[in-house]
Amino acid sequence: MTRPLPAGQHTVRRHNSALVLGAIAESPGSSRAGVAARTGLTKATVSSLVDRMVAAGLVSDTGPEQRTGPGRPGSALFLSPAGPHGLGLEIGVDYLATCLVDLTGTVRRRWVRPADHRNAPAGAVLAEAAGVVVGALAEAGRLGVRVGGLGVAVPGLVEAATGLLRVAPNLGWRDVDVPAELRRAADLGDLPILTGNEANFAALAELAAGGPADFVHVSAEIGIGAGVVVGGTVFEGVHGFGGEIGHFAVDPGGPACSCGGRGCLERLAGQDAILRDADAPDVDTLVERLAADDPAAGRAVGRAARWLGIALGNVIGLLDVPAVVLGGAYARLHPWLADPLTTELGTRVLSSAWSPVSVLPSVLGGEAAVRGAAASAVRAIVADPDPFVEAAG
Amino acid sequence: MTRPLPAGQHTVRRHNSALVLGAIAESPGSSRAGVAARTGLTKATVSSLVDRMVAAGLVSDTGPEQRTGPGRPGSALFLSPAGPHGLGLEIGVDYLATCLVDLTGTVRRRWVRPADHRNAPAGAVLAEAAGVVVGALAEAGRLGVRVGGLGVAVPGLVEAATGLLRVAPNLGWRDVDVPAELRRAADLGDLPILTGNEANFAALAELAAGGPADFVHVSAEIGIGAGVVVGGTVFEGVHGFGGEIGHFAVDPGGPACSCGGRGCLERLAGQDAILRDADAPDVDTLVERLAADDPAAGRAVGRAARWLGIALGNVIGLLDVPAVVLGGAYARLHPWLADPLTTELGTRVLSSAWSPVSVLPSVLGGEAAVRGAAASAVRAIVADPDPFVEAAG
Repeated sequence: MTRPLPAGQHTVRRHNSALVLGAIAESPGSSRAGVAARTGLTKATVSSLVDRMVAAGLVSDTGPEQRTGPGRPGSALFLSPAGPHGLGLEIGVDYLATCLVDLTGTVRRRWVRPADHRNAPAGAVLAEAAGVVVGALAEAGRLGVRVGGLGVAVPGLVEAATGLLRVAPNLGWRDVDVPAELRRAADLGDLPILTGNEANFAALAELAAGGPADFVHVSAEIGIGAGVVVGGTVFEGVHGFGGEIGHFAVDPGGPACSCGGRGCLERLAGQDAILRDADAPDVDTLVERLAADDPAAGRAVGRAARWLGIALGNVIGLLDVPAVVLGGAYARLHPWLADPLTTELGTRVLSSAWSPVSVLPSVLGGEAAVRGAAASAVRAIVADPDPFVEAAG
Repeated sequence: MTRPLPAGQHTVRRHNSALVLGAIAESPGSSRAGVAARTGLTKATVSSLVDRMVAAGLVSDTGPEQRTGPGRPGSALFLSPAGPHGLGLEIGVDYLATCLVDLTGTVRRRWVRPADHRNAPAGAVLAEAAGVVVGALAEAGRLGVRVGGLGVAVPGLVEAATGLLRVAPNLGWRDVDVPAELRRAADLGDLPILTGNEANFAALAELAAGGPADFVHVSAEIGIGAGVVVGGTVFEGVHGFGGEIGHFAVDPGGPACSCGGRGCLERLAGQDAILRDADAPDVDTLVERLAADDPAAGRAVGRAARWLGIALGNVIGLLDVPAVVLGGAYARLHPWLADPLTTELGTRVLSSAWSPVSVLPSVLGGEAAVRGAAASAVRAIVADPDPFVEAAG
């Protein structure tokens, strides 16, 4: 609210529309008067902006708000499921996933396509991904909804200042301009595209799905990603490179890793390492064997818990966050991982006697990253709705 | 400025005094009009509050401000060196240090007393420390200055909510109420006492001494402490327990540590470990041998650089902060540590190709923690000056 406003009625309206829609997003079911009180705008201004956004399909006005106080009840305002949708795309090492989400966060469509992207050229993979996006846009068209933005989750370091994917070790990619490659492969018009690290997107999605205000989300797929949430905000680091945990050196004398280091967490406790250790062909089989109390499977998970305990013990000692959320393949292993990991952390974290660490399963599991990518597109729409109101008018 | 104000003229004045003094602290040399503009208070209110603070010795009014624009120059306001001072006390494992600092940050007196506190009872050590504080207060009296607060730096985990020192592994202490123990041993009147982790205080002092906005301060004394600074703020974690790095497990198969773990950073790269490895009796001797190109001394520092590289590589991968500040004994070893550590970090930190990590020497060296403790006492005075104005009036 203290952001300086350049002159011009249109600019002021754009700013105020964002304030109003942000207030409705934060407190669904508010009345026009409630929004006016929270934003500091006059009721007349709020009413006029709300009316435009109702007409454009961004806001729904669903009758009297729930209220117990005196006075005539105002009508209750919500983000509208008919408004522009956010599309999430995840470039996994062994799959492509997309997810179409409305302004309220409801998932309208999901697609996952298995693939093998290890060491595949970025151009080819992103051309395939662009095809998937075109298909998703067509499906959105059939549903009668507009897609207002695309969030792309990638398993690598995304530089905040440039938006470039600087390195994705498990893909073998360096310095890729993901939006430019997608646009080169398909006509995506003026669709806004935002690229981000999959682990940070996953943490954002877990937070939005009701996660605690302070946690480390650690997720195993081919690699291991972490997203740090402090005070309800994803901590991305100074350049956007934060949250790297896969190449934590947990055993400096251990096996060589593709990154050039030795004994990296990913190499010892990643999905592939656990499956190899348990001699299981896939996670489904591993889970079956764990459920049947297979000792070899149990030992493999126990060893992974020890390596995870070393890395996460260091993270928690440094950041003092009281919860670990296990995502990706770890979410499925939670019933067997949680106890040994909790024990490891209790031993390793000096402060755990006064601040015990909870080990929680992810709510969204393997879907978290693509959900977070879609949610980031929705956030961008809510942060600047006026172009969508204009386009609808 | 949006803090709700309870009713009552005194409360409002107290709040506004803090606003005014905070504005002068942030922009030394401001005029009354400048302070009014920055705080949103009227010029009359600012003038009246400034006059009270000048009379009480908290603010000095040293003539026309430096300004090139038109109009009659206002007089320039500064925090006054005659105002209440902050006293810092550091409970080291092998020393007690104190430091008296005025509102402008100038050190007026420093004392260091060697000691051996390993496994000494908290009561006895804090009684000795209380004696040192009493001596420092007497010396301040001779200088004609009032001490407005005491900051106490301790080598352990301080719980923000209770102020309790929960554990100090190298002292062998648990659950110590430091202010209560000090007051039990000596009559400290109503002197406000604030306890904090020495590494976080050291990071605060380095920041105040002109450090970068984002860095990890890592310091070797008997233990190894770290303070994380992000966006110009010390990150203390959810409960105040953040910044633990001494017990990072960098070699899980390594030597046993007093914490119960194995291969902790402190055990492998702490001051004692380096001295033992180099067969040097103390840091002075080690530095002499390094300056004379002694190969054994060089190898010992090289090995420490490798362990530090593993721990700090993990920290930087997680937090994406672009600088390491070496404090305590590491500051003295900087000429020999910096190169091998920079090389280690360049190899280990995935993002270092786009965001090279600088390894800087601490500006304050072994003094940082006690300086930070004193600075925190000064900050508390500036944040609530009215009681000192009242006492002077």
